[in-house]
Amino acid sequence: MPNKEEITNWLKGLQDSICSGLEALDGSGRFQEDLWERPEGGGGRTRVLTEGTIVEKGGVNFSAVEGNMPPKLLKVLRVEADTSEPITFYATGVSIVLHPRSPRTPIIHMNVRYFEMSNGTWWFGGGIDLTPHYVDEQLASDFHQQLKTVCDEHDTAYYPAFKTWADDYFFIPHRNETRGVGGIFFDRLQTTDQHSKADRWAFLQSVGSAFVDLYSHQVNATKDLPYGENESNWQRLRRGRYVEFNLVWDRGTKFGLETNGRTESILMSLPPQADWAYSYEAAENSPEAKTLDLLKKEINWVEKLMETSI
Amino acid sequence: MPNKEEITNWLKGLQDSICSGLEALDGSGRFQEDLWERPEGGGGRTRVLTEGTIVEKGGVNFSAVEGNMPPKLLKVLRVEADTSEPITFYATGVSIVLHPRSPRTPIIHMNVRYFEMSNGTWWFGGGIDLTPHYVDEQLASDFHQQLKTVCDEHDTAYYPAFKTWADDYFFIPHRNETRGVGGIFFDRLQTTDQHSKADRWAFLQSVGSAFVDLYSHQVNATKDLPYGENESNWQRLRRGRYVEFNLVWDRGTKFGLETNGRTESILMSLPPQADWAYSYEAAENSPEAKTLDLLKKEINWVEKLMETSI
Repeated sequence: MPNKEEITNWLKGLQDSICSGLEALDGSGRFQEDLWERPEGGGGRTRVLTEGTIVEKGGVNFSAVEGNMPPKLLKVLRVEADTSEPITFYATGVSIVLHPRSPRTPIIHMNVRYFEMSNGTWWFGGGIDLTPHYVDEQLASDFHQQLKTVCDEHDTAYYPAFKTWADDYFFIPHRNETRGVGGIFFDRLQTTDQHSKADRWAFLQSVGSAFVDLYSHQVNATKDLPYGENESNWQRLRRGRYVEFNLVWDRGTKFGLETNGRTESILMSLPPQADWAYSYEAAENSPEAKTLDLLKKEINWVEKLMETSI
Repeated sequence: MPNKEEITNWLKGLQDSICSGLEALDGSGRFQEDLWERPEGGGGRTRVLTEGTIVEKGGVNFSAVEGNMPPKLLKVLRVEADTSEPITFYATGVSIVLHPRSPRTPIIHMNVRYFEMSNGTWWFGGGIDLTPHYVDEQLASDFHQQLKTVCDEHDTAYYPAFKTWADDYFFIPHRNETRGVGGIFFDRLQTTDQHSKADRWAFLQSVGSAFVDLYSHQVNATKDLPYGENESNWQRLRRGRYVEFNLVWDRGTKFGLETNGRTESILMSLPPQADWAYSYEAAENSPEAKTLDLLKKEINWVEKLMETSI
C-alpha cells in the first residue's frame, strides 16, 4: 500500500518529468524554480516558465504541507472526526496551469493530489481540463478520448463520472458557461469494494503521467496556425473569464488565499494579461460565437470524435 | 423623513449629474446607457463610458431592486427578523468605478446606497476610495482632507471612524496591502440619539454630491503628466490587484455574482486590461517601490497634508 513518502517522492519526480517534457515541447522556455517553506510545516517547489516559444506564462508546482488540522478545514472538508485529540494532516500534490502564447493553442490545467490525516482518513483527488480560446471540435474530442483511454485502463465507470464532475466543477455560474471543453475531475477517491488504495494510486499516476502527451498533441496540432490581432484580442477576453473562474469560483484558489497559502504559487494560474469589455458580443456566425456555443455542459465529446472519424 | 421614493429619485438625479460632470471632465467620452429589469423585481440604469480622453473604461450604475427577502440574505446581513410572515426588501444605490487612461491618474470608486425591509428596518451605506497607480502624497492628502470636510459638516466623529473602516474594507489580505490610499466606508447608518433618518440621508447626499469635485481635482492635477511604457506596464499590474480585490474580497461583488445579479453591471468595475507577473518585485527606491510602501492601513493622510502645507 503506497505511503505518503512514496507518493510524495513520485509526485516530485512527476514535476521533474513534466517540466522536462514541457521544456522540450516549448523549445526555448526554461522553468525558474522557487523553493519555499510554510511556517506551519512543509513547503514547495514552484516552477514558472515565462516568455517561451509556446508557453507565454505557466507554472508547474509541487507542494507537500503538513501541520495541525485547523477546525475550519475539517468543516470546509465536511469531515467528521473525533477531535478529542489533535489531528494532523499531510497534503501533497502537483498543480499546473499553462497559458500559451498563441490564441489557437488551448490553456491547460492539471492537478493531482493526496491528502491524509493522522486519524487514518486519506484520499486522492485531481483533474485535468482544457480551455481553448477557439474550440476545435476535433481537438476537444481527441482530448476527451485520450482521457477516456487513461480512465478505462482502471475502471470504465471513471470517465463518465469524472467527465460529468468536471462539467460541473469547471463552470462559471455568473456567465452561464463552462470554463472550456472540460476534461475530468475527481475527489475523495478512497478504498471501496472495487478499489484498493494501490488501485487508486495507480490511477492517479496514470493521470499525471499522461499530461505531457495530452498537451503535446494540442500544441503540435495548433502551434503553426496563423493568427492576428483579432484572435489575440479574443484570447485576452477569454483569459479574463479564466481569471473570473479562478478568483470567484475555484475552491482550491479561494481556500488557498483565505488560509494564508503562498500567494504567488496560488496565483501563478493567472494569465500574463487579460481584458474586460463591457457587454462584449461576438458577431453572429463568427468563430468566437461558435466557441461560445460550445462552452456548455453535457457535450459528449467522445461521440463527436467517433462521428467525425467515420 | 425621507422615504424610498424620494431617495430613489434623488439617486437617479445623482447618476445624471455625475454622468454630465464626468463627460465634461473627460472632454470627449460619452456614457452609453443600458436599461435592465430584474425578473424578481426592479431594475437599473447601467451607464458605461469607454475610450474617453481621460477615462479608458468606467461605469456609473443606478439600480433599485425589490422583492421577497431571501432567507440567505437575512443570514448574510445578520439581521434578526420575525420571519413568520414574508419580508420584502427594497435596495437602491449608485455605484461608480472609473479606470483612467493615464497611469498618473488614480482609479476611483464610489457607492451610496439605501436599504429597507417591510418590517421597518432600514439603513444607509456607502463609501469612496482612491486607488492611485502611483501614490502622490499631496493628492492623497487632498482627497482625505476633502472627505473630512464633507464628513465634518455632519458629525466630526464620522471621518475618523469611516476612514478606519475604509482601511479595513479596501484591504487585500493575500497581498497584505491596501487597495489604494483608502477613503471612507460606512454601513448600517440608522437612527441614533445623535442622528435622525433625515440627518443620515443628508450625509449620504453630501457624499454623493462631492464625487465630481473630488475626482476633478485628481484628474486636473495629473492629466498632463507625462508617462511611458514603464508606467503603463505598472498600471496594468496594479489593475491586476484591483481585479484580485474585487473578485476575491469585495463583499458587494461576491454577493452580486452569487445571487444571480446582472453580471455585466457588477463587473463593469473591472479594468479594460490587467497583467499578472510571477513574483514581480519593484526596483529598490523606484517610484513603484515607494507606492507599495504607502499601501498600508493607518496612514494619517490629513496630517500628512498639514505637514507638507506648512
